[in-house]
Amino acid sequence: MTVRFGLLGAGRIGKVHAKAVSSNSQAQLIAVADAVAQAASDLAKQYACEVRSIEQILASADIDAVVICTPTDTHADLIEQFVRAGKAVFCEKPIDLDVERVKACLKVVDAESGTLMVGFNRRFDPHFQAVKDVITKGEIGAVEMVTIISRDPGAPPVEYIKRSGGIFRDMTIHDFDMARYLLGEEIDTVTAQASVLVDPAIGAAGDYDSASVMLSTASGKHATISNSRRATYGYDQRIEVHGSKGSVSAENQRPVSIEVANASGYTRPPLHDFFMTRYLDAYAREISSFIDAVESKSPANPSGLDGLIALALAEAALKSVKEGRAVKVSEITGGLG
Amino acid sequence: MTVRFGLLGAGRIGKVHAKAVSSNSQAQLIAVADAVAQAASDLAKQYACEVRSIEQILASADIDAVVICTPTDTHADLIEQFVRAGKAVFCEKPIDLDVERVKACLKVVDAESGTLMVGFNRRFDPHFQAVKDVITKGEIGAVEMVTIISRDPGAPPVEYIKRSGGIFRDMTIHDFDMARYLLGEEIDTVTAQASVLVDPAIGAAGDYDSASVMLSTASGKHATISNSRRATYGYDQRIEVHGSKGSVSAENQRPVSIEVANASGYTRPPLHDFFMTRYLDAYAREISSFIDAVESKSPANPSGLDGLIALALAEAALKSVKEGRAVKVSEITGGLG
Amino acid sequence: MTVRFGLLGAGRIGKVHAKAVSSNSQAQLIAVADAVAQAASDLAKQYACEVRSIEQILASADIDAVVICTPTDTHADLIEQFVRAGKAVFCEKPIDLDVERVKACLKVVDAESGTLMVGFNRRFDPHFQAVKDVITKGEIGAVEMVTIISRDPGAPPVEYIKRSGGIFRDMTIHDFDMARYLLGEEIDTVTAQASVLVDPAIGAAGDYDSASVMLSTASGKHATISNSRRATYGYDQRIEVHGSKGSVSAENQRPVSIEVANASGYTRPPLHDFFMTRYLDAYAREISSFIDAVESKSPANPSGLDGLIALALAEAALKSVKEGRAVKVSEITGGLG
Amino acid sequence: MTVRFGLLGAGRIGKVHAKAVSSNSQAQLIAVADAVAQAASDLAKQYACEVRSIEQILASADIDAVVICTPTDTHADLIEQFVRAGKAVFCEKPIDLDVERVKACLKVVDAESGTLMVGFNRRFDPHFQAVKDVITKGEIGAVEMVTIISRDPGAPPVEYIKRSGGIFRDMTIHDFDMARYLLGEEIDTVTAQASVLVDPAIGAAGDYDSASVMLSTASGKHATISNSRRATYGYDQRIEVHGSKGSVSAENQRPVSIEVANASGYTRPPLHDFFMTRYLDAYAREISSFIDAVESKSPANPSGLDGLIALALAEAALKSVKEGRAVKVSEITGGLG
Repeated sequence: MTVRFGLLGAGRIGKVHAKAVSSNSQAQLIAVADAVAQAASDLAKQYACEVRSIEQILASADIDAVVICTPTDTHADLIEQFVRAGKAVFCEKPIDLDVERVKACLKVVDAESGTLMVGFNRRFDPHFQAVKDVITKGEIGAVEMVTIISRDPGAPPVEYIKRSGGIFRDMTIHDFDMARYLLGEEIDTVTAQASVLVDPAIGAAGDYDSASVMLSTASGKHATISNSRRATYGYDQRIEVHGSKGSVSAENQRPVSIEVANASGYTRPPLHDFFMTRYLDAYAREISSFIDAVESKSPANPSGLDGLIALALAEAALKSVKEGRAVKVSEITGGLG
Repeated sequence: MTVRFGLLGAGRIGKVHAKAVSSNSQAQLIAVADAVAQAASDLAKQYACEVRSIEQILASADIDAVVICTPTDTHADLIEQFVRAGKAVFCEKPIDLDVERVKACLKVVDAESGTLMVGFNRRFDPHFQAVKDVITKGEIGAVEMVTIISRDPGAPPVEYIKRSGGIFRDMTIHDFDMARYLLGEEIDTVTAQASVLVDPAIGAAGDYDSASVMLSTASGKHATISNSRRATYGYDQRIEVHGSKGSVSAENQRPVSIEVANASGYTRPPLHDFFMTRYLDAYAREISSFIDAVESKSPANPSGLDGLIALALAEAALKSVKEGRAVKVSEITGGLG
Repeated sequence: MTVRFGLLGAGRIGKVHAKAVSSNSQAQLIAVADAVAQAASDLAKQYACEVRSIEQILASADIDAVVICTPTDTHADLIEQFVRAGKAVFCEKPIDLDVERVKACLKVVDAESGTLMVGFNRRFDPHFQAVKDVITKGEIGAVEMVTIISRDPGAPPVEYIKRSGGIFRDMTIHDFDMARYLLGEEIDTVTAQASVLVDPAIGAAGDYDSASVMLSTASGKHATISNSRRATYGYDQRIEVHGSKGSVSAENQRPVSIEVANASGYTRPPLHDFFMTRYLDAYAREISSFIDAVESKSPANPSGLDGLIALALAEAALKSVKEGRAVKVSEITGGLG
Repeated sequence: MTVRFGLLGAGRIGKVHAKAVSSNSQAQLIAVADAVAQAASDLAKQYACEVRSIEQILASADIDAVVICTPTDTHADLIEQFVRAGKAVFCEKPIDLDVERVKACLKVVDAESGTLMVGFNRRFDPHFQAVKDVITKGEIGAVEMVTIISRDPGAPPVEYIKRSGGIFRDMTIHDFDMARYLLGEEIDTVTAQASVLVDPAIGAAGDYDSASVMLSTASGKHATISNSRRATYGYDQRIEVHGSKGSVSAENQRPVSIEVANASGYTRPPLHDFFMTRYLDAYAREISSFIDAVESKSPANPSGLDGLIALALAEAALKSVKEGRAVKVSEITGGLG
């Protein structure tokens, strides 16, 4: 079986997914939609597919699944529409910046028994996946402390920051999901501190550019996250899991791994400078996992609930910064049960 | 000039300092005292020095300086006595488990214009020193985020735990000092979480074995500390400093750096399994720095105030765990003015 | 422009090139030929192209270029036929096992002004390419000593060995080409030693499984090559270039770069276990380079002459082993004029 | 028991051994001799020992053992004199630059049943020792191929070169000994190539500054050695042993192991810049091993025979360069049996 795709949004991340869908032998890219006609037609030409409007894709009998890469404030509505139309939905994170809106959206998905996958691409990175496998096989015993260091090569434009929902919802949200994924137990409390060290304009926009977060589970497991919007040496993405029998870590990745030695020392090149090159394999594997779920009619992971919880952790972190205290996740979610 | 030393306490750490003093060409070990006569005489024999009582050392005209390695609850009294007797004092951390007692002790040191150095040996590790040098030279720009991962190879006996003052005062105190040293700015707030994951007996003794700490300064710099009482792979001691222009880190040390490759992969040996081998050079350099201060009649570093502040950070961390909130350091110190 | 391809040979390496051609947006795979009908039709189905005989491909007006992946003893004849038919030719190494036959073949290519590229894929590995770039930019000064360590995960079947031309022509030939590429100066003498340490059956077949080679240029530059047919830890492929101002190296590659630490030490996974995964990127970039040459009607590199010289170095190495002396390359080539 | 030492030669390497002897609790440095009176008295003052002439040391009843650090052309005579005087002898390499002279000297040692140890310090490096231990434990199976890369930070003065016996006898001799030590089987043939790439003055002095060597044993094991007199990145000392079940390597050592990351990449400091800091531990352990042999009246290792064989390998290498062929070690030694 081949899963036939419509792509909603032909921007930066839309292009990444267009490539992943096109390269997948189980998938076919049928149509692309974008508010900017030129963007849609360029992408359509590159991948030999059609340009259709979102409404047309919604009504297309020859489309089984959609990838939503439109602006965040449209995600929840589109998910609801496409799920109701019987399409499987892959949606870029976040579903919405508001927890209540996400909850409402997930109710619709649930009612329709829809297939929804949320784009936490890092779960599909082969190195991080290998870390997870080591944990699953019991090689490090019981997980005790997760350490995530996650730094962007450079801060995005302030205009982006303003629409982003803030550092916790936009950037740390990936690390929240990774922490949950690796801990293997729900997070109970969130404590965070944040400041503006990189760019005062980010502070002027009401956001932070440097953040530290501590998470704890009911059984006392820890996770810590360290975020900065600027790392001169590239896209810094490290995870480490300390357990009762040992530890496992995934180091940073660079485009080429050579080393030059001279009187100044031994120098390896900087890291990848962009998430798209760093997570190239992850994006391909992510779409492949979605296709598998669609084909086998089994639940997709990370799920809508995963998206909701990561967002709730972001809100809890923000609350923690503002109130200077440990925040129970249940304060945000009201309990999800 | 040669600095003539008396050693108070011939236990585990006393032996480390006896060796450091004896190997230093600017120093001479004159006498050793210990409540256990055998311990004192064994060490005296090994280093060809005399056994004297603490009182005798206090009265010895041929002794310029003492190294205090006796139980913690004797430190403050001994510091006061020896400073009043005009001896330079090197004291193992902590000065006392109680902040008020430390403050009182430091007042005596101050009144006597005494020389007091506190044993934060890690500042003298050549690798960590090289990290500090990189910062001082401005190579990474402004310091923004310090990350310290510090794990013991195995938990000490519960009897030790009970007298230790708890994980923050006993173990994390080194990391608090290191964070201050690397941040180059006083810490303003402490937030911590702690749990018992390694040994329930530690919990039963009222202590924790796993801790995470976030520190922030007035200008918004961050430090995070991750502690565990057990790391199967050895004595895990890493620091990393992220700055505006770059980052610098010191990796773990192992006794030999070989690598064996076979069908299971590429394996390097475990780390040092004990603080004494890991910090062998640091202990020698620490005593050397103390001797330099004594000889040049200049202030010794880390000072009594450094000892006090690290202890206050430990108390703040404990308070933060108990109250689930960020604790201002000034709540503990009352301002040090 | 799109370069239209015929593929001759649908075996292991043929599949690699079929994938590389198909994934390249400047190329189209039109037809595949193989003596085994099933192999041809399977591959044709996978890449939606036709099955044609070699003769048909030779006569196909809709084919611009061929990739020759047939058995070695057919290479020279096919090159001559397809060059005469005006097709651009990419041929897997070696052109032939006999130096005189290669020379004759290259004369035909020359007479026809044909485009011929020989499959030394490693030149296109991004890590090795980065090493070359460092040299070209002058970062290590004048190249002085090249060190190549190249070991296979496991010995091929003895049947393969028998038809291979021996370790120097089959395995070391890649390293000879790499040494030339990195030295930037022709090799003047070859000295080699070889033995059977891995599998006596290889010795019984008249070949070696372990070899060391020293190369020198007229100006006194050195290269050393270390080969084994078996490395338990994977496909060991390292190069290092020592120059007057510094050194540059490319380390081994592994599928995932994680590290597990426990009481046994710190372990990273084994290396790639196969040349196809190790050089996946290199194969794609190699075909891309060939396509560029075809499109721009410029000479392809590595050229037929590169193939001839690498073969001559292999013959010189064999002669050196047998005669226990340094062999001048000119003894084999007779000078290449 | 304490071994009482006389030191012959107070130059650079004499100082290294004076320190090693003085720091060893089983040894006492009694006297030092040097043709330069000031050098002897300075060292004597530093280690609180006497200045005596070589003749006086020879006649000293309070001296059990000597360390010979005088110029090479005096070594053989001194060994004979001191062995005849019943003193245990530790002699810096080489015993002599002439194989026949060494043979004659060893006959005297043998006739006197004297204790003679030759200063191949690298065998005592803890990292290389760990490599040897891995081999001895069978962890890598049968040893097959040894790779040694050994490069000096910078070429010595030409005056030194002229008296050195040439690169093979002066520098490679350490690597020859290491190759024998790691192979665990005597070397049968030597093939070498050498050139002048670093400093024409070295060539003018009749020596080489860049050399490659291949060694083989009767059973077909290989070793390769790569030498250069200049490495801008420090003292490059690597060994790797490839075996039937796996591989083991010892990487380079640096004074501090930190890493700085910025827009230029990730940089670790250069290596040690001198053999004395690189092999500090090795020198101490070497003397300790000698003391153990003296105390236990057991043979010292590396022995005089080890010194002879390493020298013979150097001569064979030189002969190989000059004659462009593989040289049997037996051509040099005439068989040692």
